[in-house]
Amino acid sequence: MDKLIGSAIVGQSGGPTSVINASVYGAFYAALRSDCITNVYGAANGIKGVLEDRLYDISKEDEKELELLLTTPASALGSCRYKLKDASVDDTDYKRMLEIFKKYNVRYFFYNGGNDSMDTCNKISKYMQNSGWDIRVMGIPKTVDNDLWATDHCPGYASAVKYIATSIMELSLDVGVYDLGVITVVEIMGRNAGWLTAGAALACESGLGPDLIYLPEIDFDMEKFLNDVQEIYAKNGKVMIAVSEGIHDKDGKYISEYGSDLAKQLDSFGHAQMGGLAATLADIVKKHTGAKVRGIELSLLQRCASHCASKTDIDEAFMSGVSAVEFAIAGMTDKMVGFERVEGAEYKCKAVPIDLTVCANQEKMVPREWINEAGNHVTQEFIEYARPLIQGETTQPKENGLPRFANLKKIIVK
Amino acid sequence: MDKLIGSAIVGQSGGPTSVINASVYGAFYAALRSDCITNVYGAANGIKGVLEDRLYDISKEDEKELELLLTTPASALGSCRYKLKDASVDDTDYKRMLEIFKKYNVRYFFYNGGNDSMDTCNKISKYMQNSGWDIRVMGIPKTVDNDLWATDHCPGYASAVKYIATSIMELSLDVGVYDLGVITVVEIMGRNAGWLTAGAALACESGLGPDLIYLPEIDFDMEKFLNDVQEIYAKNGKVMIAVSEGIHDKDGKYISEYGSDLAKQLDSFGHAQMGGLAATLADIVKKHTGAKVRGIELSLLQRCASHCASKTDIDEAFMSGVSAVEFAIAGMTDKMVGFERVEGAEYKCKAVPIDLTVCANQEKMVPREWINEAGNHVTQEFIEYARPLIQGETTQPKENGLPRFANLKKIIVK
Repeated sequence: MDKLIGSAIVGQSGGPTSVINASVYGAFYAALRSDCITNVYGAANGIKGVLEDRLYDISKEDEKELELLLTTPASALGSCRYKLKDASVDDTDYKRMLEIFKKYNVRYFFYNGGNDSMDTCNKISKYMQNSGWDIRVMGIPKTVDNDLWATDHCPGYASAVKYIATSIMELSLDVGVYDLGVITVVEIMGRNAGWLTAGAALACESGLGPDLIYLPEIDFDMEKFLNDVQEIYAKNGKVMIAVSEGIHDKDGKYISEYGSDLAKQLDSFGHAQMGGLAATLADIVKKHTGAKVRGIELSLLQRCASHCASKTDIDEAFMSGVSAVEFAIAGMTDKMVGFERVEGAEYKCKAVPIDLTVCANQEKMVPREWINEAGNHVTQEFIEYARPLIQGETTQPKENGLPRFANLKKIIVK
Repeated sequence: MDKLIGSAIVGQSGGPTSVINASVYGAFYAALRSDCITNVYGAANGIKGVLEDRLYDISKEDEKELELLLTTPASALGSCRYKLKDASVDDTDYKRMLEIFKKYNVRYFFYNGGNDSMDTCNKISKYMQNSGWDIRVMGIPKTVDNDLWATDHCPGYASAVKYIATSIMELSLDVGVYDLGVITVVEIMGRNAGWLTAGAALACESGLGPDLIYLPEIDFDMEKFLNDVQEIYAKNGKVMIAVSEGIHDKDGKYISEYGSDLAKQLDSFGHAQMGGLAATLADIVKKHTGAKVRGIELSLLQRCASHCASKTDIDEAFMSGVSAVEFAIAGMTDKMVGFERVEGAEYKCKAVPIDLTVCANQEKMVPREWINEAGNHVTQEFIEYARPLIQGETTQPKENGLPRFANLKKIIVK
């Protein structure tokens, strides 16, 4: 394989994670040290930055600030949610991209994101192949949802799980201090895939995890749910419940939407307690049990809590960025970097190339056999899968007692 | 002063904090090593455990597990919200307590809590003085609200602030990744005192703090608020707002209650979006600005996030427990341990005894001069006050990537 000499663009898209910047740092790190890559550019706000000719010159950044990307959450280059049209329908964007690629002699394109971003990456890759412009296109995975196809897991997932399990342990102690009954409903991200909520189960080994776990992979049955809760409440006086935001009934109706219906009944009290799913379920459980019930939504914090990131996740995120560059320099294109577990007693994970066509737009769900038969908890197999991922603590630098995040200059290439 | 020989009871009451157990460990540590204290008991669920004769024998606990109390959140002994009647009205509880004190020859009573707990402690202290039972009664402060009178600050406050400021920095990065306007409203604990919300301002030094801060110390003016938000939104396209849960208008009506009114209007859309204050304000701001607005409630997590505790706070919490025992052994009674800043360039804090009568039931508010003139942010003086408190990181031990909390045997004394 001949050496391909030219510039590289790295872009980020989709929702942020705690470690997405660690991946980008990995790509920068490898690209800046490669003798094939002449210039390293960061796309401002993903593909939008390419289309608008807003590229940052990464060689102008301080190495120390770049290194801080390892422990800086959210997308440092800026993100976007921009869906490319099919080139066969409208190739305006693709033509414009090719123009930019030619302008800067871009021969390497790295795109860091989740399902939608891999779709974008795939479309760009295929268009460029047809156009004859010699470029190597690589996807770098990230998503707290862990729903990317064909990879063992995704960077970003483990840190979110570590935060979720830690928070649930702390909450369990907090709500348990009084010798009174209490039921807690914790709402966790995950519209279609329940990986994050399943991760709450890691707290169970300490005895402070959820008693009940409901994922969107299983149709939610309100009657069965209320029976589950009532049973544990009668036995323990305390119930901790973890629910995915996307749980829905057998007709596909989101349980969070039950709130609108219930609000009409509650109106007679002059309250409008309904918010998201946690509040909705808390109100329903309160009515049913008469117990003290709290609804807690972990909200955005779960995906950006870099102060509680997993060292394993940071290392793997960095590795996936480095691997993307190495794979591309070695001649690969049209791939996403995936993770594969190396066989053996000790957990080890290696980067493998996966066809973009395979992973674009396919969602990976929690397998049925990792959910218990009753559909209200996970199995030990899931625990074995997830536990290694959250090992190790971040060494996030602090300044005045708070995180010191990367400050990039973001100098636009003219 | 003669040595007073006898048993000690340590109890906890009120809402939990990240470091309340560090105080209790301090008291245990000093009491177990004192030659005046014959037995060290922990009261199960505070004063209720005394009344019900449910005392834990602390000498039976493993030293290693006791030490883990330093980094274990919430009240390890259990808590209560039990308001003692005035002894002049009904002295049943006091008589029962005296019975228990005599049964176990209790000569030292340490009570760890906030305003209500100091009221309890004060009442017990005064009754025992009148009863002639020779006992030394000491309050050990804790409250995330930081509203205890006559002390520079309270253990528990700093760790909550560290978590709040850290979370707001992370949220600022998270919501800022798209090149689109966004307004975020973060609801922080504090019904009457705005200390916790003010603490969010520590994030401002990084450029990732709140643009606007509203405390319950200032009457909330909705029109002025919306103008404040609109102005910053027009200028920056992004607004981060921190609000205390207890903000209220000039008539004393909580802003969180505005939701009920607004719900009727929203009903026409078939939604019932109202939850707590964050959701209420987010809806109002959305209607006013047309911007994308998010409401986020930090909920219970802010008071129990021991994984993000301040080392300074842990050390001071421990020190307050030790000091309570030392003060009592030295002959003091009827006091609460307070903190005083030692003069000098470097922050240093020492324990001082404060009369229980002085601190019982008085709330300390954020002084007007630490809030800016416009009433929508804090001053540099507040920053100087709060910054030293959040310094240093916890060294919380981990097991399998998650916190390893104390497991006490809790053997009931027969």
